[in-house]
Amino acid sequence: MAEASASKNDVVTAALLVIGDEILSGRTQDKNIGHVAGYLTGIGVDLREVRVVPDVVDEIVAAVNDLRRRYTHVFTTGGIGPTHDDVTAEAVAKAFGLPLGVDERAVAMLSRRVPPAEMNEARLRMARTPAGASLIENAVSWAPGFSIGNVHVMAGVPVIAQAMLDALAPRLKTGRKMLSRSLAAGLKEGDVGGPLAQVQARFPDVAIGSYPTFDDEVGFTTTLVIRSRDAARLDQAEAAVTAMLAEVRARLRR
Amino acid sequence: MAEASASKNDVVTAALLVIGDEILSGRTQDKNIGHVAGYLTGIGVDLREVRVVPDVVDEIVAAVNDLRRRYTHVFTTGGIGPTHDDVTAEAVAKAFGLPLGVDERAVAMLSRRVPPAEMNEARLRMARTPAGASLIENAVSWAPGFSIGNVHVMAGVPVIAQAMLDALAPRLKTGRKMLSRSLAAGLKEGDVGGPLAQVQARFPDVAIGSYPTFDDEVGFTTTLVIRSRDAARLDQAEAAVTAMLAEVRARLRR
Repeated sequence: MAEASASKNDVVTAALLVIGDEILSGRTQDKNIGHVAGYLTGIGVDLREVRVVPDVVDEIVAAVNDLRRRYTHVFTTGGIGPTHDDVTAEAVAKAFGLPLGVDERAVAMLSRRVPPAEMNEARLRMARTPAGASLIENAVSWAPGFSIGNVHVMAGVPVIAQAMLDALAPRLKTGRKMLSRSLAAGLKEGDVGGPLAQVQARFPDVAIGSYPTFDDEVGFTTTLVIRSRDAARLDQAEAAVTAMLAEVRARLRR
Repeated sequence: MAEASASKNDVVTAALLVIGDEILSGRTQDKNIGHVAGYLTGIGVDLREVRVVPDVVDEIVAAVNDLRRRYTHVFTTGGIGPTHDDVTAEAVAKAFGLPLGVDERAVAMLSRRVPPAEMNEARLRMARTPAGASLIENAVSWAPGFSIGNVHVMAGVPVIAQAMLDALAPRLKTGRKMLSRSLAAGLKEGDVGGPLAQVQARFPDVAIGSYPTFDDEVGFTTTLVIRSRDAARLDQAEAAVTAMLAEVRARLRR
């Protein structure tokens, strides 16, 4: 909602595509969504959508093509290892209609870890990129990710995905950072909901979120999160929410 | 891939739609994807896709309509609380072209927790359902979710989402369970990749996945996961993978 007062360049958007049967079967708990989400927020990129799809070429192609047309950046995690079920590079090349080949720069990078006697066909799968891609290095495994167009292909192993995001971030187009404030309401959501909607109506350019947490000991509690790219508007909205909370608390005490 | 030998009724599919700005901003770490994924696998429903979208009606409508046409079930989490940013019920009603109204059965349920003096407009938002919906109860907060068509709308708070899934599960159409075996390869993925692809080619009806994990102490290790709905084929594929692993290990020792 903060976009209303922001110029077009202020807002840079992204989607994350998590690729892997193991996430969908529940065998592996995803750890990339939370990290990428927080990281992008921190550098001024708005994560607008996440999808998780299986290791199936056509599913990946469809998702990549849908997402890359709608967002400034698309990040993918998973499916770039050396085994037959690693089909992300192939799918991304297909999505762009580009040939996929063994990239000598990627082989050179891989060779920093893999001795010549161990460089086999499986490991060379990790060096395949679509024509025209730039590499995303990582000093953990030395098997690179790559960027092609606005799609950034990263590993699934969280520590490697994080290293790749660190390597990639300085090259990314970013926007004006979303600022946020968190307030502990000290009230139940049902008591704060009506007055909060009125504050939101007065600040249509500021996003106000309300988040319940349930605790076996204390029952329901509420955290309010106020977000805007404009520091002055953020201050005004925070003051309005704070005043409203004081009023509701006083009313409930009566 | 196991579908090849399974009759149509054996395979029941699902998508999960996670709704909430707080997941996309990284403020809240999602805990529902992993739980729902493992739960559905356990009852014979294949989770095929997950999406995370913001608290924006049109985004939710588009995702619900896309997913409900492609999968047997669609589960949603988030956005059914009492505040202005809880727009899931409205969006799901809009996706189906149905009117949204306060549901007296839901009010009765809510009243088990909320005393009459506290039943305000905000709390009544939690009792809104699309016409024709059935309720999904939960004994944690007594604010119900609902099912309409093949879409099952659940809370975002994990403990409540889990209670709702428990309540809902006995009513769900389920399929033949996917069976799986996990094998610790004791080898690097790059060494097992080639021979593993050959085993996979011999068992096109069995899904074989290879998962690297990186550990600061031991470096890269590999877990192989073999999945099929057919117990006999699973046994055969497991035996083939086990034999292949023994062969690769012997070769590397030479």
